Amino acid sequence: MKMEHKRKALNGLKTVRGHLDAVILMLDEERYCPDTMKQVSALQGSLERVNRILLENHLETCVQDAIAEGRTPEIVDELMETMRYTSALTGPTKEVKL
Amino acid sequence: MKMEHKRKALNGLKTVRGHLDAVILMLDEERYCPDTMKQVSALQGSLERVNRILLENHLETCVQDAIAEGRTPEIVDELMETMRYTSALTGPTKEVKL
Amino acid sequence: MKMEHKRKALNGLKTVRGHLDAVILMLDEERYCPDTMKQVSALQGSLERVNRILLENHLETCVQDAIAEGRTPEIVDELMETMRYTSALTGPTKEVKL
Amino acid sequence: MKMEHKRKALNGLKTVRGHLDAVILMLDEERYCPDTMKQVSALQGSLERVNRILLENHLETCVQDAIAEGRTPEIVDELMETMRYTSALTGPTKEVKL
Repeated sequence: MKMEHKRKALNGLKTVRGHLDAVILMLDEERYCPDTMKQVSALQGSLERVNRILLENHLETCVQDAIAEGRTPEIVDELMETMRYTSALTGPTKEVKL
Repeated sequence: MKMEHKRKALNGLKTVRGHLDAVILMLDEERYCPDTMKQVSALQGSLERVNRILLENHLETCVQDAIAEGRTPEIVDELMETMRYTSALTGPTKEVKL
Repeated sequence: MKMEHKRKALNGLKTVRGHLDAVILMLDEERYCPDTMKQVSALQGSLERVNRILLENHLETCVQDAIAEGRTPEIVDELMETMRYTSALTGPTKEVKL
Repeated sequence: MKMEHKRKALNGLKTVRGHLDAVILMLDEERYCPDTMKQVSALQGSLERVNRILLENHLETCVQDAIAEGRTPEIVDELMETMRYTSALTGPTKEVKL
């Protein structure tokens, strides 16, 4: 992995861990459900950003190497399969104009 | 349905239809894939907003009536089941602070 | 909160914490990115399920009470606003037939 | 574009158009909201599958060429930016085991 990607992704996950502990406490104290729900959504958003860093790293390392070595079909299949496990490549956006 | 919700949701879907025709044309003309992908994502976002209007209408009409009539468990089960078909109640957010 | 919902949601979050520690280790050991990405997606899925439990609890307690007391508009506005922070009410589904 | 990808993506979008017309009719006839919501979610799912075909095509053509020509950073930046407009690279999954 590229050092910068590893560092950023690790920091992201460790931040999630701290945030998660705070959300567990919110739940244990029975804070208002919508407030807790927003925090759980925020955790999902943080994990999403980690996954984007991992994808960027993968593209710049393994995918690049595979394509250079003529293994495009295999690496693309694997990439599409990885994203199949993830729910959504795309989804609601608001800003895009034709 | 409340008239305002029906009007907004119908307008939303009709806008999607027009936008969709434009995207079909983009694809037929083999425009640059990332540009087409952004438009497809925008379509998904528009549909998402329609679904939120439908949910709001459902809560203010059928769910309200059901709860008033003591049928909370049934209506909540149905609502959770509806959202199970939808992929995600929650997901990435960026802005929420603890 | 209903005890069953609290228990399930807390168990869910604690499971996420254990899983998260395992994913941090995967990343630290520089395991293959697509494998780590799938685990991060699985974490997001687990959080999603916690949020659904919290929503169910909210509907069966606060929303029910608010509607019974004639405060439907306020509670629905708040609920829609909570879900606005979350990325998606709906999203890709595969199974639904017309 | 590869012919197979173009054909599949066009077919997908045209199917969405027909399905969309049916959903507009459902809404106009004021069918039960949860039923309409499920159909709107199904439309989003169909668009999602089109976007995956477009991504696959993009990877196998433009991204492959760019990497072969030493333009990895530019093409990866553009790809990440395209996916930024889309809501989610990843999200809830259920099946993945560590």
